[in-house]
Amino acid sequence: MLNTDTQRREGPLAGVRVVDLTHMLAGPYSTWLLGALGAEVIKIERPGKGDFTRVIAPFSEDESIYFLSVNRNKRSLTLNLKEEKGKEIFKKIVATCDVLVENNRAGAMDRLGLGYADLKAVNPRLVYASISGFGQDGPYRHRPCFDVVAQAMSGMMSITGEPGGDPCRVGASIGDIGSSLFAAIGILAALQKRTSTGEGGFIDVAMLDCQLALMENAIARFLNAGETPRALGSRHPLIAPFQAFPTADKPIAVCVDTNEQWDRMCRAMGLEHLLSDPRFPTGSARNANHAELEPLLREVFLTRGRDAWLDMLEAADVPASPINSVPDALNDPQVVHRKMVVEVPEGSGKRFAAVPITMPEAPLPAESPAPRLGEHTDAILADLGFTPAEIGAFRRDAVV
Amino acid sequence: MLNTDTQRREGPLAGVRVVDLTHMLAGPYSTWLLGALGAEVIKIERPGKGDFTRVIAPFSEDESIYFLSVNRNKRSLTLNLKEEKGKEIFKKIVATCDVLVENNRAGAMDRLGLGYADLKAVNPRLVYASISGFGQDGPYRHRPCFDVVAQAMSGMMSITGEPGGDPCRVGASIGDIGSSLFAAIGILAALQKRTSTGEGGFIDVAMLDCQLALMENAIARFLNAGETPRALGSRHPLIAPFQAFPTADKPIAVCVDTNEQWDRMCRAMGLEHLLSDPRFPTGSARNANHAELEPLLREVFLTRGRDAWLDMLEAADVPASPINSVPDALNDPQVVHRKMVVEVPEGSGKRFAAVPITMPEAPLPAESPAPRLGEHTDAILADLGFTPAEIGAFRRDAVV
Repeated sequence: MLNTDTQRREGPLAGVRVVDLTHMLAGPYSTWLLGALGAEVIKIERPGKGDFTRVIAPFSEDESIYFLSVNRNKRSLTLNLKEEKGKEIFKKIVATCDVLVENNRAGAMDRLGLGYADLKAVNPRLVYASISGFGQDGPYRHRPCFDVVAQAMSGMMSITGEPGGDPCRVGASIGDIGSSLFAAIGILAALQKRTSTGEGGFIDVAMLDCQLALMENAIARFLNAGETPRALGSRHPLIAPFQAFPTADKPIAVCVDTNEQWDRMCRAMGLEHLLSDPRFPTGSARNANHAELEPLLREVFLTRGRDAWLDMLEAADVPASPINSVPDALNDPQVVHRKMVVEVPEGSGKRFAAVPITMPEAPLPAESPAPRLGEHTDAILADLGFTPAEIGAFRRDAVV
Repeated sequence: MLNTDTQRREGPLAGVRVVDLTHMLAGPYSTWLLGALGAEVIKIERPGKGDFTRVIAPFSEDESIYFLSVNRNKRSLTLNLKEEKGKEIFKKIVATCDVLVENNRAGAMDRLGLGYADLKAVNPRLVYASISGFGQDGPYRHRPCFDVVAQAMSGMMSITGEPGGDPCRVGASIGDIGSSLFAAIGILAALQKRTSTGEGGFIDVAMLDCQLALMENAIARFLNAGETPRALGSRHPLIAPFQAFPTADKPIAVCVDTNEQWDRMCRAMGLEHLLSDPRFPTGSARNANHAELEPLLREVFLTRGRDAWLDMLEAADVPASPINSVPDALNDPQVVHRKMVVEVPEGSGKRFAAVPITMPEAPLPAESPAPRLGEHTDAILADLGFTPAEIGAFRRDAVV
């Protein structure tokens, strides 16, 4: 049915076709990743406007950097889904796809006549994933949600920040991206099921639920040990030492879990006498007596500079790190070695974080740049069999 | 080959068999999720010791809550992989499995003779996923890594916390769990590829790389607009207002992106005059002029209590939330409705965060409790065809 204009891709998801009704971050990050793994992604945008993030500053050559980062590996088709003709074209696309991803508010797709029940009739093999703030049911299902609402409501902000300080948001948009990753997992699991049953299905992923799943440890501690998790600055709630320390110059992060690591750390720091201290024999004991342990370690760390400590701790095989800024991190030899910055398209000077999955037996395709609004409208409609005259009429009628 | 003792599971990954050589968090969270989606997971642990997290306090009936939370839906087999007989048994298991997941340090599996090349010879359909701190190559490949090292080295801590304050760790272990989720995605993508090629493959996922992928926005802004991302407390770097505000009693999180939301928020707050203010016409303009906008909003939020504002903002369809503690969050009507707390096993009183993926056409199986150390050793070995006498000999020889 599709002609040679169809995007040819490699990678483990080569041959998987995704229709993408997402906007902002939670949905687009998920479909960025599916595209990066080789799926063909058709992003459907509102004619004349497109994704809300197209207007978010800062810009690179008039294109939103926010948009460019999470819409790589997609083609853009503009389509007015409120028009009957738009719905008809949309259903033709759905009939050719394996996966649909949308992150509109719960109920919005049903009101358009494009809910799962509607589209299952068009394509019973369709995996239909809805990402929303609060899920498809429950008292908040119709409420709007952005990242900080999910972080705040879930308790994530209550366990992040300085002890007793103001509530802090996780600096990356984990409220959105948490749901992006769980949605991708649900979609791929449903595709796996489809290989045996031949049938697709509906997937309901909520930003709020995903935050709670990321907080499994805090939740399990509260429910089963009665501990109310709190913000602890850089500390781990259960293991010590496992935190940042100031040194004579810049801070470092250090963490020790096993007793072997504790032994090596104490020797590296000239603190052999702590090895027989009855307050500190295990990670849990060290954590329980953290208030007494921390000042002992802090005093020693202040006697040398960060890089001297990092060398000594590396020699002792103790996990440690500088507290890097983003520029520091991107200059780190390991990050450079791992090619975690990718230029898209090659030669453009536009650079982004790369896909953090390496698969030698199914190498990922080179990433393609985020599309201009409607850049692929004509090509995708031609693929569906529409003539140039028909496409011209759609454009005149503001269907595309 | 397998008899009826084999664990029967439902869900989208029913029929997928996973051998799990993981410990601590990054690996176990990934295999928890695969098990929750219906895969059969055989967790291999060191005889007599098991996963390092089995000794981490606090405990519930002598079992580590840390361990219990992320080892649901697994069976435990003890096996000494340093013994030839242990390796032989292990290879018999690998021959029956679809997926292997391990999170030992890079090179450790090769040194045991159990690297991908070794096991591909045993089972060419095997998907072999290695999760590590820094990846399978590069200058840091042999270094140890825990959550806070990945958060520190990646720059995640530099963008989390109070402006100008001490470095803060994200309160959930996103340094680990980020890699768990990307590994699950890589595994499921590789299974999808296997349906067409019949061949498995190797997957290399690094905690550090995954942090960078979560920070895509901060990285894209630095690389393409020269902005050095910094910790901003509860604020979003690009959109305003999008942050926590104090009220007359407890703080709230509020966020506004579109101009329609801005219009409704200003009217709800009695700030209609801001709608024509040339400093605030768009989300990006509001963000650029945030220093002038924030005090105007802060002053008004301080005039009423949190709940009054939440009601008014909900009526205005503006995204907002209380800053919940973990207990608050778990009592929230939406969280209760979504059944995001699950008792495992039913009737035990032990409660955990549930799987945040709902799939009506492939309902997830009831979760099963984390295993006691070696709880399923006999059953799994019997499944492989070993007699009770042979199993007794393995135990005497400390092979299991």
